[in-house]
Amino acid sequence: MTETQGTASPSRRALIGWGGAGLALGAAAAGSAVAMTRTGNDVDPAGTATGVAVDFHGAHQAGIATPVQDRLHFAAFDVQTDDRAEFVQMLKDWTAAARRMTAGRTVGDGAYGGLPEAPPDDTGESLGLKPSRLTLTIGFGPSFFEKFGLADKRPEALVDLPQFPGDNLDKSRTGGDLCIQACADDPQVAVHAIRNLARIGFGKVAVRWSQLGFGKTSSTTPDAQTPRNLMGFKDGTRNIAGTETDRLKKFVWAGEGDGPDWMTGGSYLVARRIRMNIETWDRTSLQEQEDVFGRDKGEGAPVGKAKEHDEPFLKAMKPDAHVRLAHPDSNGGVTILRRGYSFTDGTDGLGRLDAGLFFLAYQRDIRRGFIPLQRKLSATDALNEYIQHVGSAVFAIPPGVRDKDDWWGRSLLTEEA
Amino acid sequence: MTETQGTASPSRRALIGWGGAGLALGAAAAGSAVAMTRTGNDVDPAGTATGVAVDFHGAHQAGIATPVQDRLHFAAFDVQTDDRAEFVQMLKDWTAAARRMTAGRTVGDGAYGGLPEAPPDDTGESLGLKPSRLTLTIGFGPSFFEKFGLADKRPEALVDLPQFPGDNLDKSRTGGDLCIQACADDPQVAVHAIRNLARIGFGKVAVRWSQLGFGKTSSTTPDAQTPRNLMGFKDGTRNIAGTETDRLKKFVWAGEGDGPDWMTGGSYLVARRIRMNIETWDRTSLQEQEDVFGRDKGEGAPVGKAKEHDEPFLKAMKPDAHVRLAHPDSNGGVTILRRGYSFTDGTDGLGRLDAGLFFLAYQRDIRRGFIPLQRKLSATDALNEYIQHVGSAVFAIPPGVRDKDDWWGRSLLTEEA
Ligand code: HEM
Ligand code: HEM
Repeated sequence: MTETQGTASPSRRALIGWGGAGLALGAAAAGSAVAMTRTGNDVDPAGTATGVAVDFHGAHQAGIATPVQDRLHFAAFDVQTDDRAEFVQMLKDWTAAARRMTAGRTVGDGAYGGLPEAPPDDTGESLGLKPSRLTLTIGFGPSFFEKFGLADKRPEALVDLPQFPGDNLDKSRTGGDLCIQACADDPQVAVHAIRNLARIGFGKVAVRWSQLGFGKTSSTTPDAQTPRNLMGFKDGTRNIAGTETDRLKKFVWAGEGDGPDWMTGGSYLVARRIRMNIETWDRTSLQEQEDVFGRDKGEGAPVGKAKEHDEPFLKAMKPDAHVRLAHPDSNGGVTILRRGYSFTDGTDGLGRLDAGLFFLAYQRDIRRGFIPLQRKLSATDALNEYIQHVGSAVFAIPPGVRDKDDWWGRSLLTEEA
Repeated sequence: MTETQGTASPSRRALIGWGGAGLALGAAAAGSAVAMTRTGNDVDPAGTATGVAVDFHGAHQAGIATPVQDRLHFAAFDVQTDDRAEFVQMLKDWTAAARRMTAGRTVGDGAYGGLPEAPPDDTGESLGLKPSRLTLTIGFGPSFFEKFGLADKRPEALVDLPQFPGDNLDKSRTGGDLCIQACADDPQVAVHAIRNLARIGFGKVAVRWSQLGFGKTSSTTPDAQTPRNLMGFKDGTRNIAGTETDRLKKFVWAGEGDGPDWMTGGSYLVARRIRMNIETWDRTSLQEQEDVFGRDKGEGAPVGKAKEHDEPFLKAMKPDAHVRLAHPDSNGGVTILRRGYSFTDGTDGLGRLDAGLFFLAYQRDIRRGFIPLQRKLSATDALNEYIQHVGSAVFAIPPGVRDKDDWWGRSLLTEEA
């Protein structure tokens, strides 16, 4: 269970007491004390209302089947330490911090009531902000298994991606030993979380690359309004809903016997930074745009149908239409859970916006999810004229943290396992 | 006045009628029609509730004294055309688009009911989103006045900034003939606005650089909770409030006789991209952090005082404290209006987050605002150990667009003027 408690006036707070209370009281006189709990929101049972906390604990990590939050900060890290014990301690510290931050609390108890001669436990920029449905999801990349003698623990389902036609990958936005996906309805809460984990990991891990997503492009909430991507089309219409337990089990969660035991209840993530040729797209006719997807732009209905959620009739679409090619019926049933975000990262030096889709897909096995789909799309998708894949990474997403004594990666990293 | 109208079901919409209604009706049968009005929100009289529209018209441009919105997309453009008439037409087209977008409407009437063989009038990604208090604010940079024979119209108050100690400016994030500041409570609405203006300007202007700001750092609403910057400190405590008409007149708006007539009711903007050495800062003691600003981190109170809004006693602060140095009493009364945003743009290739403050300051005269302040700060501010100015630009912000026949820059660009 997540814990939240109300903020209080300085005087009341001083009475509640926390680690270093004496110091905090002293500091309060100089105006230095703040509550280490950020807000007074309760946990949201449905998990859809903005502002509340999402439970950090469970059989699966939050942030996958969780209704998609509005904003993203995604970071890939490289491991710097060779000391397994030190690394495990960091994972425990990360877990403790994640547990608190997702509940809307500061990282430590002595955020601003601690020793004045020590750095604060928390960097502070999310004080006063709501939990904002923050979820933090950790993953381990292929290169991670070259460390700490873990080679034989690498799941077969975590394959290195092949080079696809049209790939133009920037090494500085590709790969990574670890990832943290931070999703929240307030971007400052997501940025704060990544930044504090990076701070805690200082000297043990370093950020390899990071990506801000300003707008969700995929919905996993069937009854909500489907968000639009930067091509102006509704995105996520035919996605796996967070409530479809059966399809999640079939397509997203690694099951018993699927691979190593430590991954049971986990999933596999493919992240692709996909740049859009915005300027070319914007000068393309409405007809061509709709042909590219096989859906209309206003309503999002499949060709020849009236409503967004009408069943697509694939043969009415152009043979190279994105939806026709990506649909499970064209791929022997292959189905992934999409959870991507739009990005805009300034300009590219040629007067064009560096914008597109940071594509995130969760699946039970990358070999039976992203790879066959992307093989087909990269070969024939009409969309290819307007996009380019410029960053790429894959991660094994371990199962959820069960309770307050559990920690991220325990099933992989405990000696007995 | 801004115009908003309710969204309606396809059938009702078809009855309302709009430009190209026949086509739209045809398209509706194929599910193609959407309302060109995005939402059903009304104009917000107080201008502080999320979601509503802010009036585009007025004596001053919106986006300066307007209560600060949560998110920013800022773009600097260079002019490519030599044809003054063509450029003026673009400004008129921009104004018409800005008027509609700030009211929560799509750019054109035929967004998705237009000719299928033509590109849509609007790129579409903000369909279904609220007006989100979008403001669009235009400015003209020094280099603009080298074009179209406008040299003698350049205001003296729009000086080129000197090189300050510590400046490490990246040319690709510096300067620009024009700027558009887009502020909104939803980033997708801000990004959509800049992108559509860039699209309309295609061939006439090109984006030189752009900056996304994910969190406001300055408040201009005295009773609201002061936001925190990425150093974790409340920022904007002692700012000019949007309601302080007298101080706005004294410090922000260019008055009659201040300079050229075309600027009366306008202002001057200094934009600085200020990188923070996040990693160093995060390992700095609480005491040092508080000494740097001369305020405490939790409450935001000035040294020796209990509450954020208590009057600072400057002599209690270290001589090099940021607030002591920046305070009007230390600068013969110099006062600016701050409207900056936090940014995080991935990493810098050295495993550090490229994060900081995109500083935006409005003032009546740059020579009596930013320059004297920054001369002092760049020489002695304790904060300098933790920050670096890496981008810079200045713009003359013309007065507001008065009514539906007026357009951005008219007072500068009409032949009679
Ligand atoms: C910038 C790149 C992309 C854009 C703009 C894009 C956009 C869209 C849109 C608008 C739809 C239709 C609405 C929906 O059902 O969600 C869609 C569907 C889909 N896309 Fe993409 N997509 C992109 C890349 C990819 C990639 C790389 C993959 C996988 C390799 C993919 C897999 C799918 C799948 C599986 C569907 C659902 C098909 C169905 O069941 O009908 N997309 N995409
Ligand atoms: C990353 C860079 C900066 C940071 C983190 C920062 C932060 C702060 C903070 C925390 C305050 C105290 C709260 C408040 O009254 O708003 C403040 C005050 C102020 N800052 Fe900055 N600032 C930065 C750069 C600048 C620059 C470049 C200028 C102008 C050249 C400036 C001018 C001011 C002024 C005028 C005040 C109000 C002083 C007063 O009236 O008490 N700041 N700043």
